[in-house]
Parts: sequence; C-alpha cells; structure tokens
Amino acid sequence: MRVLTSPQLNPATETGWRRRWFDIIYRHDSRPSRNFDLLLVVAILASVAVVMLDSVQHLHARWAHVLYPVEWIFTVVFTLEYVMRLVVVRRPLRYAVSVWGIIDLLSILPAYLSLFIPGAQSLLVVRALRILRVFRILKLTRYVEESGVLMTALWRSRRKILLFLFTVITITIIAGALMYLVEGPNHGFTSIPSAMYWAVVTMATVGFGDIVPQTAAGRLVTSVLILIGYSIIAVPTGVYSAELANTLRQTEAAQRDGRGCPRCGLEGHETDARYCRQCGELMPTPFSC
Amino acid sequence: MRVLTSPQLNPATETGWRRRWFDIIYRHDSRPSRNFDLLLVVAILASVAVVMLDSVQHLHARWAHVLYPVEWIFTVVFTLEYVMRLVVVRRPLRYAVSVWGIIDLLSILPAYLSLFIPGAQSLLVVRALRILRVFRILKLTRYVEESGVLMTALWRSRRKILLFLFTVITITIIAGALMYLVEGPNHGFTSIPSAMYWAVVTMATVGFGDIVPQTAAGRLVTSVLILIGYSIIAVPTGVYSAELANTLRQTEAAQRDGRGCPRCGLEGHETDARYCRQCGELMPTPFSC
Amino acid sequence: MRVLTSPQLNPATETGWRRRWFDIIYRHDSRPSRNFDLLLVVAILASVAVVMLDSVQHLHARWAHVLYPVEWIFTVVFTLEYVMRLVVVRRPLRYAVSVWGIIDLLSILPAYLSLFIPGAQSLLVVRALRILRVFRILKLTRYVEESGVLMTALWRSRRKILLFLFTVITITIIAGALMYLVEGPNHGFTSIPSAMYWAVVTMATVGFGDIVPQTAAGRLVTSVLILIGYSIIAVPTGVYSAELANTLRQTEAAQRDGRGCPRCGLEGHETDARYCRQCGELMPTPFSC
Amino acid sequence: MRVLTSPQLNPATETGWRRRWFDIIYRHDSRPSRNFDLLLVVAILASVAVVMLDSVQHLHARWAHVLYPVEWIFTVVFTLEYVMRLVVVRRPLRYAVSVWGIIDLLSILPAYLSLFIPGAQSLLVVRALRILRVFRILKLTRYVEESGVLMTALWRSRRKILLFLFTVITITIIAGALMYLVEGPNHGFTSIPSAMYWAVVTMATVGFGDIVPQTAAGRLVTSVLILIGYSIIAVPTGVYSAELANTLRQTEAAQRDGRGCPRCGLEGHETDARYCRQCGELMPTPFSC
Repeated sequence: MRVLTSPQLNPATETGWRRRWFDIIYRHDSRPSRNFDLLLVVAILASVAVVMLDSVQHLHARWAHVLYPVEWIFTVVFTLEYVMRLVVVRRPLRYAVSVWGIIDLLSILPAYLSLFIPGAQSLLVVRALRILRVFRILKLTRYVEESGVLMTALWRSRRKILLFLFTVITITIIAGALMYLVEGPNHGFTSIPSAMYWAVVTMATVGFGDIVPQTAAGRLVTSVLILIGYSIIAVPTGVYSAELANTLRQTEAAQRDGRGCPRCGLEGHETDARYCRQCGELMPTPFSC
Repeated sequence: MRVLTSPQLNPATETGWRRRWFDIIYRHDSRPSRNFDLLLVVAILASVAVVMLDSVQHLHARWAHVLYPVEWIFTVVFTLEYVMRLVVVRRPLRYAVSVWGIIDLLSILPAYLSLFIPGAQSLLVVRALRILRVFRILKLTRYVEESGVLMTALWRSRRKILLFLFTVITITIIAGALMYLVEGPNHGFTSIPSAMYWAVVTMATVGFGDIVPQTAAGRLVTSVLILIGYSIIAVPTGVYSAELANTLRQTEAAQRDGRGCPRCGLEGHETDARYCRQCGELMPTPFSC
Repeated sequence: MRVLTSPQLNPATETGWRRRWFDIIYRHDSRPSRNFDLLLVVAILASVAVVMLDSVQHLHARWAHVLYPVEWIFTVVFTLEYVMRLVVVRRPLRYAVSVWGIIDLLSILPAYLSLFIPGAQSLLVVRALRILRVFRILKLTRYVEESGVLMTALWRSRRKILLFLFTVITITIIAGALMYLVEGPNHGFTSIPSAMYWAVVTMATVGFGDIVPQTAAGRLVTSVLILIGYSIIAVPTGVYSAELANTLRQTEAAQRDGRGCPRCGLEGHETDARYCRQCGELMPTPFSC
Repeated sequence: MRVLTSPQLNPATETGWRRRWFDIIYRHDSRPSRNFDLLLVVAILASVAVVMLDSVQHLHARWAHVLYPVEWIFTVVFTLEYVMRLVVVRRPLRYAVSVWGIIDLLSILPAYLSLFIPGAQSLLVVRALRILRVFRILKLTRYVEESGVLMTALWRSRRKILLFLFTVITITIIAGALMYLVEGPNHGFTSIPSAMYWAVVTMATVGFGDIVPQTAAGRLVTSVLILIGYSIIAVPTGVYSAELANTLRQTEAAQRDGRGCPRCGLEGHETDARYCRQCGELMPTPFSC
C-alpha cells in the first residue's frame, strides 16, 4: 500500500536544516525523532480531548474561554507541522495527496473554515483520525508482525466476507420489505428504508427497541429473522478463524526448517527431509547433531 | 442443484436471432452478453431503489407522478425480458418452474395485480430477490470457488446446525412457558407465544426491551437464560469454524500430491518435489502416470 | 448416561401382549413401533400447541370450550401411555425415577392437580420437555453420531466453560456493586441484585434498555464493562471451536487407517507406516496396491 | 506472577502454634487446612450475600437489625484472619502489598470507615473480590491446567487483542463525532463523549435503546457502523480460537515423542511405538536415553 512506502528526502536538501528536520519528522530511530513522535502523539490526543470536552455543553459554558484559544494553538502547531512536512520531503505533492497528507490537511482545515462558516469547528473531530499515526510510530515495534498476520488473514478472507455482507444486505432488503408489509406504518415501520434499518439492527443482534413488531405475524417473522441472523453470525467468525489459523500455520512452517540445499540452495524443506526434493542432494541433518 | 445447471439453447433455433439472444441472455462471456448483464444488474438495483423510495411517505407525496411511471417502465422491461427468456430457451417450462423463473415471474406479477387489487404494488419489493442474479453473473469470477467452500462447509454442518436450532426451539418453548408463569400477563408476557418471542429475542442477545421481566424471580430466570444462550452461541460458530477449517484443509490436501516414492514408498510429497525427501530416489513426474 | 441405557423387557412377560407392546413402545425398528413413535411425536406437538394457544387471551375467550376437553383427552392418552410404559418394562421403578419417567409424570400431573388447585393447569407446558423424545426417536438415524460429536466436544470443554462462567459471575458481582455505588437507586439500579441483573444483560450484549446508566461516570464504567464482555465472549466460542476441531480430527484419525498388524493385531497405524510400531512386523501396504 | 508464588513460613517460628497456623492458612493439603479453606469460602460467599441483601430496600427496612450485626461479625472474623496472615508469614510486608493482601485489607476497611463516613459501608461489596480466592484453593485440582491453557492462549493473543481494542476505540471516537454532527443534541447525542458511549453500546451489539438515531442520515451511518462492528466481532474470537488451537496442539505435541529411529532417523513416533514405522528397526525405549 502506498501509505506504507517511506517518504524520501528531497535530494536537493540532503544537508543542512532540512535534512535534520526530515530525519526528525519522518524517521523513528534517533533520539530527537522519538521525542518528536512522542510530542506529536501527546498533542494529537490532547487536541482530540479538547474538541471532545468542548462538545459537552456545561463544560463549554464554563471553559469556552480556555478551550477556544487552546484549539487554536493546536491548529497553529499542526499547520506548522503540515507545512514542514511539505517543505522537507522530496515530492511534496505526492505527500499532499497520500492518505496521511489528506488526514493532516483535514485536521486543520475546519478551524480556518470556522472563520467563515459558523459551526465548522465541530469538524475538528476529524483530528481523531490522526490518532492512527500511533500505529505508524509503533511500526518499529513487535506490533507490526502481529498486525501483519491479522491483516493477511483479513485480506485472504476479503472475498468470503464480501459475499457474506452481500448476502446480509439482500436478506435485509427482503426482510425490511416483508416487515413493512406485515407491520405497516403504524408501528414504526414507516417505510422500506426504515424497516431495513430495523432489520440490520435486529439481525446484528443490536436490538435498540425503538422500532418493534407488535402483531403476531410480525413477531413470527422477527423470530425467524433472528434465528437466521444467529446462524449466519457464525460465517464471518468461522471464515476469519480458519484463515487466521491457516496464516499462523504457514508463518510457522516458513520458520520451521532453515536448511538450504548445499547444491541447489532450495529452502523450505520439511523437517524430516534427508534429501533435497529439487536435486536429490543429501541434506545436512537439522541442527547439525 | 437445479439452479446451477446451465439452460440449453432451443435446438430448433440454433441459428438466427434466437441464437443471438440466447447467447446474450444466458451466457456471460461475450461483449454483448456482458453489457446485457451489466444493464440488467443496473435495472434491478434501480427498480428496487424506486420501490424503496416510493415507500417513504414524503417522497411519495412529492414524486409519485415520477416514480409511478418509472415503476411501470421497469415492469414492462422485465416482462419483455421474461418473455424473451421463455422464447429462446430449449425447454421454456423447465425455466418457468426453476427458482430463477419463479423469482422473475414474481418480480413482475404484483404490478399487474395492482391494477385489480389496490396495494399489491408494495409486493414489487420481491424484485430485491432478483439482486441474487448478481451472484449468477459473478459465477465466472473467482467468487465461485470461495462461495463453493462456504457452501460446502455449511452443507456439511447442516445436521449439527439443525440439531442446534431444534435445541434452541425447545429451550425457547420451556423458557417462554416458565416466564409466562413467573411474570404473568401484567408485564408484557401476555401469552406463551409472546413469551417465546421474548425468549428468542433474549437468547439471541437482541434484547429489544419491549418486554422485560420486572419481578426478582423473572430477572433471575432471565439471567440464567442469558447465560445459557451465551454459552450456546458458541455452538454454531464452533461447528462452522471446524467444518470450514476441515474443508480448507481438504482442498489444500487435494492439491498436494498422490505420488509415492518408487523405492521407499513415502507419500505426501510437495507438488514440485523431483526427488524423494526420505531416500533421494528420483520421483515420477506428477500427472504422468 | 442413564438416560441412554435401553430399558429391558420384563422377563416374566416375554411373550404375549406385553412383549408386543414393549416392542412397540421402547423399540424403534419395526413398522408398528415407528407408527407409534410418529403418533407420539404428533400428539406431543399438538398438546403443546393446545396449551400455547389456550394461553392467548382472545383465543381462550372464544375457544376454551374446545381447547379444554382436548387438553383432557391428551392428558388421558398420556396417562395411559405412562401406565403402559410402567407395566411392560422389567423394572418399573427404575423407569419411574429415570429422567424420562419423571418428565412423563410431570407432563400429566398438572392436569390432575388443577382439579384441586386452580391455575395449576398452566404447568402443563412442562409437556414441552417431552419434545426432547424426538431426539430419542431420531437416535437411530445419522443424527446420533453428529450429536455425539457435539456432546463430546461440550463434555471436553466443560471445565473451561465452568471456569468461564465462574469468571463472568465474579465480574457480574463486582460490576453490579460498582454500578450500584456509581449510579445510585435513582436510575433503576435500586439494589445490588438489580444491578447484577443489569450487568448480565449488558455483558452478554443483550441490552434490554430497561435500566441504563445516566451519569457520565456510569457510562464510562458501562463502556469498559462492554469492552470486557466483548473480549470475553471470545472464550467459550474459542474453547468450543478448538475442542470440536480436536474431536473431529480424532474421529477422522480413528477412521484413517483400517489396517491391523498381521502378527499382533494392533490397529490405528499412521498411513505411511510400513512396520507395526508394536511388534516390528511388515504391514500390508494400504489399499493393497 | 507474584500472586502465584507461595508465601513462606517465618523461619523464626518454624515450630509451635505459628507453624500450625501457617500450615492451616496457606497450605491446602492437610485436613485442617482444607476445613479452613471451606469455612473461608462459605464465609466469603455469606458475607457477600449479606451485603447484597442489605442493598435491597424492603429487605433493609425489615432485617437491618439482623444484617447489621452479621456484617460486623464477618468484619471481625476477616480482620482476625488478616492479622493472622500477617503474623505467621515470613515477610508480612510482602504479603501486605501483594494483590491478595490488598484485597483482604480492602474487604475489611470500608466497615471501619463507615464509623466515621456514613455510607462507606456500601463499599463492603469489594469483598466479592475475595471470591477469587476460590480459584486459589482450586489450584490443587485439575482446573489449574485448564486455566493454564486458557491463560496461555490469552497471553499469546494479548498484542492482537490490544491492537483490536485500539482499533475499536479509534472507530468509536470517529463514529461518535460523526453521529454528534449528524444527529445533533436534540436526539440524545448531546456531546461527543455521549455519542462515543452510544457507539460502544452499538458496535458491541448491546443496543440499550436509550439513545437512538432518528434522522435518515443517522440511521444510515448506524447501519454502516453496525455492519463494521458485525464484521469486526470476528477478530477477537478468531484470534483467540487460533491461539487456543495452537496451544492445545503444542501441549499435545509436547506429550508426543522426541525419539528418532536409530537406523533411518524418522521422528515423530507415537509414545507407545517400539519399532520404527518406516524401517522396522527396534526403537530405544522412551525416556531411557
């Protein structure tokens, strides 16, 4: 994925302050860059917290005069960081249109928009997306391979899960239409889209209870729908479990036998292999004992 | 399954326009037939969307004069398509009584019925079932084998899941009767069927909240019922996971190798093995014996 | 389990009508006994349906004069059946105290009790438990081995699931007490048992909504409780899946290699075994090719 | 874990009454110590029951004069036990700051606090945590290895489950902010934290129904959020199932055999194998080399 490719230094600025800032901003291995990462994560979390607190009415009423300037300070800091990222990278445009670049832009834009359009400030919550940067920073730790395994299994089961979602949506449409006909608009099933919303809420076992069947026929259809949903919930779990077990087994198998054939160099032999399956050469005994 | 058998061309019409239309309608490999498939999917989705929008009251009030003719246009188009399918196929009756034929008929019938019976038009939502045609069209892609694996696992676990459903229904009846006795008709448990509906909603962890226990005894029974449901929910997931893992493993094993070593007899070689990993003997080449 | 041991014929009556009735009632292999089984299942389902319908008020109001005698007819039939079972079996007492004997007794007792205690008739729903007889009758079909696999896996995971239930109950007590302190009696958390009921309903993701947190602190505790419940729901499913996969694998492995050693007779060899692992005798090659 | 290290006897008191009480309190193998354990579990359960019953208003109104002294008796008994534990153990401070020591202290402190601060008595429910001692006492039974397997699998999947929780929290923040913008404060989404609470309740399929979307846009966002939650619920279950299956397999493999055949070198023999299944060579007896 494009997101994961490391940005490259602007070659025209391989020395001087730009080089130093590039290292600080985009790398995660030296002391200053780690401090920068830490500060950034703290700033992101703090700015999200400020937006969240500001949305609580009684806090807003009392602390608006503090929260408002703090929001602007974060906006200025993030703007400076955004400009800096554009300046020191080799291809500024490529960064600007990358997923991270767009998130970074979106996390400062609403503040400036709010100068012209009242209320736009609420959109600052988009900053929450910047929290995902934590994953990027954690990239250097052991969490990478774990998330790699998780994503590989998810990627492998994508077709099965898409098929599943498609089936669920089809059932939702039909169940929604059926309930609209059975219950009628008097009991909250005012339209097919409303009934479909109810069907999703019911099949996924959320069950808010804002719309409920009230006729005997409606309750029967609901019971059947629930039992279908209950049986179907097994599918994504089953698919994902099976693929994950598969991925784990293969990762293990790849680490299993480190021996390479002395003649043709083929790797990945089974542990009990005594001869290379490619060229018939006698293999060294495992662990040389 | 009958659904999956390809319909055959009417032999008396193997040339001419009928042959061309058969290819367009029933096949999915040439350019015109793909365009037809695409148009059909778009028309189905659009017609379902129209029925859905028409069910929303304020949209109906304002746009009925547009939505009504559009519904009729789709009805006419689908009628023409249905007739065409009957004309070009070798055995029209067999198509008419197949699952797809019945769905196709049901998706146009309500419109004509609405001329005589007011309100029948709402039944047009049955058209949603035609969306399933998308699967049929996707048949030629890689989704087939995926859904094959999913269905095989589901088919294999059918008996276990039936047993599970039977157990759930038995528990539902007994829990419903118990709650009817414990809570009485004052708290919404007005009859055993109502209480059974509540038991299904509760055990499947949907929990609408339209009927809730209000006595201490009722809450105790509910807690026990929930814990039973919570333990039992593991069964279909576990069954399906295990069967799916099994199916995946067998699919994999089938792709491995049936060759035995001519000298030592060891089996289970990888497909690219040229020499026995046990004794170094040259293996027969795969599929050439 | 005692339930599964076949009842034995009274030896003093090995001929004559008792023998015939024993075969009809307790066996499932001849034509008359199958008809009896079928009739019994139909009668059980019908009697449960009658009790269920009778609990619906407007049906009761109108059809009580029909439903009441029908209930008594079923009671008489089941009483005759119960007496018959006692008469023809070798040890009547042993049948009377078995699980099935008690269920059979309980399914007729409430009717007679209702002659003295008004309302006892509602207890007739206990008859629903007789539906479980269907499993017994199905015993001769392929469902037996399926349910055997399901039960074996459940039996194997019993300790893990007990540990899990114990953990859930401990968390429930602590969460209930915490919410009782945090929310107080004004918001429905009127006592620790009430709060525990709420905690079970919440952790199992049922969420009726009859009791909900209304303070910020209560909502925070609820969110944490839900996330704990959400992570913990994985345990029974995971345990059961793993045990079921294990059971399936072992069943398969036992069927894997049917070869017995020609000298010592040991069975259960791996497929690639060329010599008996017990006595070193050369094994016949699998499938004799 | 520190909790699991056995406390050691005070060496200065290896004889006399301290030694006897140490054996009784901290060991679980002799008759008196087992009686002590049993008494302790009963006392804990009874004291928790008393606190629970006392929280029910109509029971408190009627039985307070009984429950109040009983609570104090348990407090005195637990205080004596706590002092005893401190006296007989080798390092009293180490016990006092251990998890169990803190729980033991917390389970008596609220009673004494209630003499000065009214209402502190409710905190006595902390005693419920002492129930966990049952696990400690069960340590000597077969439940240990079972819980060992469960905990090992949980420990192995900790990183994956943390990643999952982190993802869920990020989605929660963004979904909460989105719903706050879409629905506005009129429909219960009064602030971003409130909307986040709603998002947790919804994604975990609890669905209390105290806050529900009422606009079409809000319902659409909700449906999407539910489908995401429905797909994501597979992750912890899948992770845990896979790791548990892995742990079970390894436990099994560890019980298999490390012996290699002295002639052909084949490994992976069953434990009861006396001859190599590949070449018929006599195997070395297990564990004798």
